[in-house]
Amino acid sequence: MSLTLADIVAALGGELYGPGHHPVSRLATLQSATSDDLSFLSNARYQSQLSQTRAACVVLSPSVPLELRQTLSARIETPDPYLYFARLTQMWRAREQSLRAEALRHPTAFVHPEAVVDASARIGPFCVIERGAQVGPQTWLKSHVTVGENCRIGARCILHAGVSIGADGFGFAPHQGQWVKIEQLGAVRLGNDVEIGANSCVDRGALDDTVIEDGVKIDNLVQVGHNVHIGAHSALAGCAGVAGSAHIGRGCTVGGGAVVLGHLNLADGVHISAASVVMCSIHQPGQYSGVFPIDDNASWEKNAATLRQLHRLRERIKALEHTHTSKNPS
Amino acid sequence: MSLTLADIVAALGGELYGPGHHPVSRLATLQSATSDDLSFLSNARYQSQLSQTRAACVVLSPSVPLELRQTLSARIETPDPYLYFARLTQMWRAREQSLRAEALRHPTAFVHPEAVVDASARIGPFCVIERGAQVGPQTWLKSHVTVGENCRIGARCILHAGVSIGADGFGFAPHQGQWVKIEQLGAVRLGNDVEIGANSCVDRGALDDTVIEDGVKIDNLVQVGHNVHIGAHSALAGCAGVAGSAHIGRGCTVGGGAVVLGHLNLADGVHISAASVVMCSIHQPGQYSGVFPIDDNASWEKNAATLRQLHRLRERIKALEHTHTSKNPS
Amino acid sequence: MSLTLADIVAALGGELYGPGHHPVSRLATLQSATSDDLSFLSNARYQSQLSQTRAACVVLSPSVPLELRQTLSARIETPDPYLYFARLTQMWRAREQSLRAEALRHPTAFVHPEAVVDASARIGPFCVIERGAQVGPQTWLKSHVTVGENCRIGARCILHAGVSIGADGFGFAPHQGQWVKIEQLGAVRLGNDVEIGANSCVDRGALDDTVIEDGVKIDNLVQVGHNVHIGAHSALAGCAGVAGSAHIGRGCTVGGGAVVLGHLNLADGVHISAASVVMCSIHQPGQYSGVFPIDDNASWEKNAATLRQLHRLRERIKALEHTHTSKNPS
Repeated sequence: MSLTLADIVAALGGELYGPGHHPVSRLATLQSATSDDLSFLSNARYQSQLSQTRAACVVLSPSVPLELRQTLSARIETPDPYLYFARLTQMWRAREQSLRAEALRHPTAFVHPEAVVDASARIGPFCVIERGAQVGPQTWLKSHVTVGENCRIGARCILHAGVSIGADGFGFAPHQGQWVKIEQLGAVRLGNDVEIGANSCVDRGALDDTVIEDGVKIDNLVQVGHNVHIGAHSALAGCAGVAGSAHIGRGCTVGGGAVVLGHLNLADGVHISAASVVMCSIHQPGQYSGVFPIDDNASWEKNAATLRQLHRLRERIKALEHTHTSKNPS
Repeated sequence: MSLTLADIVAALGGELYGPGHHPVSRLATLQSATSDDLSFLSNARYQSQLSQTRAACVVLSPSVPLELRQTLSARIETPDPYLYFARLTQMWRAREQSLRAEALRHPTAFVHPEAVVDASARIGPFCVIERGAQVGPQTWLKSHVTVGENCRIGARCILHAGVSIGADGFGFAPHQGQWVKIEQLGAVRLGNDVEIGANSCVDRGALDDTVIEDGVKIDNLVQVGHNVHIGAHSALAGCAGVAGSAHIGRGCTVGGGAVVLGHLNLADGVHISAASVVMCSIHQPGQYSGVFPIDDNASWEKNAATLRQLHRLRERIKALEHTHTSKNPS
Repeated sequence: MSLTLADIVAALGGELYGPGHHPVSRLATLQSATSDDLSFLSNARYQSQLSQTRAACVVLSPSVPLELRQTLSARIETPDPYLYFARLTQMWRAREQSLRAEALRHPTAFVHPEAVVDASARIGPFCVIERGAQVGPQTWLKSHVTVGENCRIGARCILHAGVSIGADGFGFAPHQGQWVKIEQLGAVRLGNDVEIGANSCVDRGALDDTVIEDGVKIDNLVQVGHNVHIGAHSALAGCAGVAGSAHIGRGCTVGGGAVVLGHLNLADGVHISAASVVMCSIHQPGQYSGVFPIDDNASWEKNAATLRQLHRLRERIKALEHTHTSKNPS
């Protein structure tokens, strides 16, 4: 598949400097690009790669110094090259897929007769859509996805391999040393343009629904507990976990492996660093972190051992301060 | 589906104050309940919601102040409203399911001819039961569950979507810079009334079996390594991981994202807080924690940097104390 | 199935002391072995079990004290008993499987007509091999495995239940408070002899491929992000996560639940302890750790609270030192 630079600028805009008729057959990084490839620069850190790249054309910002831009045989200038690159990847993918005509519903998928799947939704191999579930237009369920009873998926969502929507939330009443199951009678509602990564799970609510609003992006192996609410356009990276009834605002990000405990509130615009644990509600937007710094093992052992006496160390400092003050009154 | 308050009390007990003939059609939280709904109060923190709720009837404890109880048009009093609520959800679910007659074994499931599946077990779409595996009465495997060779599942278990029982434990002998596989010749044994959440994994043992005793509840995306033993009625929350040959006692809880290292012992009644890492055996029951406190990013950076010098700080405190003592002999 | 001790030594070497005609029917630990079983001792810690074991024969090192070795009715001496044990488990498994003749490709598997699967590969129930994917000789995909478009799996690999190879990497360009998808146009390449545990995920690259070299072993529920590169014979334990574009060297190990952030480099021979978080590149081989030590909950609370003031404590120590020095000039 190839496109000319002129085709690309006609479709996506930007200012082309160089031969419009030049065909490009692939998108590539500056380092790996060959003379048939289109590349991009979105991070000033990699500017030095411009002089070495063999790319046929580079998408970049007009803010890159002119002497660097002029080393290129062709370039497309646009104020947000990363966004332009995203659109380019979509253009590539769309052309690739238009060359194929595939059944939208894979013959091996199981769709319950009482489920409602939009005619434009694409249901991959071995997917399971249970009774009363709904799947919106242009949504794509890849392989081995389960959409449980009465769960609703909006339009243009992508659910990757092995995603589980609507497993039972983890709810039990303790009784005489045993656990009595609380049947989970709620469901899951996903808005539009939600993407969920491979083998991630969103549990059904106990009574009310678990809700994921429009445009939320969830990576692989993420756990979303029952009755969680995630505000629009938030993003959760891989291996994150959100416990039951947590409420995450709009435009939040949760880093990889981070944990949000149950029944907490995160305001809009809260950003949790990777592997941090949120143990109380956060009311102000901003970046929050909490990770033990990694070190060579011997140093860590000494510091970790001391950490277990930290409170007592503080008392010793207090005592020193007190002694000093009482003996040296100023 | 609706039930009268009298039906409910006849089935589950409790003392009804109000019109027994009143029908309720749904269970709901105090906040979202409408006048057709039954609600409950199990946590004193939410008592103030009693005066606002529109619920037809509320299940609560006789220990709630009488003036609050009397604001309700109907109520059911019971000493443990949370347990009562659990039983109510089960009643609801059971009635819902009795209205349907479904094949217990989904036509798409694959059951090896040498597996033994009880006639009352329910096997969902695309499940795989391998050679020599056993599944007990009334156990329910949802979709995409794998029960590996020779693994045994007890009675009344629930295995959610994507659960893997009996994948190979992670065992290799190092040899000249490479890994030589140790074939895992054991299996997995699950007791009765075990529930395992979506996409969780329980590995088969190397020689002996991995064992999960009666009544254990495991949430989503939990990893249980080979030869682990989990005592009866313990519970593991989402994203927890238990490494090989760890032995967890009875009635323990492991919080979400917590990690238990291999070959350790946890006594009965040990409770591990979310995201904590157990690095040595714990012999006394109680609550154990170990999480770096989250903070705004700038504060965290300063504290984390200092933490890397903590042992040296302790030496400096010692030096100060020593100087002080030697110069100020008392 | 049984083998004589002479058969075993003929196949695997080692020096046999005892009756070669003795049959053994099972491999077992020293503790659980009966008189039909073969056992092994690879860790000096368990030497004391030698006198109690009922095993028919024990595989051990000639470095075990002679008086302990001589308590056994039969033994096989070999310099690396753990490696010998690994080979024994393989011998057992191989004999077990040779008794069966099973179709290599399960009838329920879906293999795209444009995928290339070697005739000796074994494809389990409900696996999905998408267009353009390649699966090498003697590779075994267990149940519910997905190999995405154009992904390539080498020879003699094992992919356990629910593994996802080639889901989209997590890539979005932010634009006006929303996320614009970056289509992931790369693929995944797995070398030879790679093993990947149940429900683990390896994402496809954005432009270039995600690469896992020969002999890498990955446990269950591990996330490998897009454009990650893992060097030969490295091993990642359960629940670990490696973020996009990280580069892990050869012969590394990553402990259970550990997280490696994106765009970092780990040199060859780097070992990350369980649950540690790698936040910057590591250039020297060695063992690295970073975990908050677990403690009883009350002690942890006090130490964690103090930790949030650690930087200020350091300032107070500095002040004490300064005061002391300035008032006690030596």
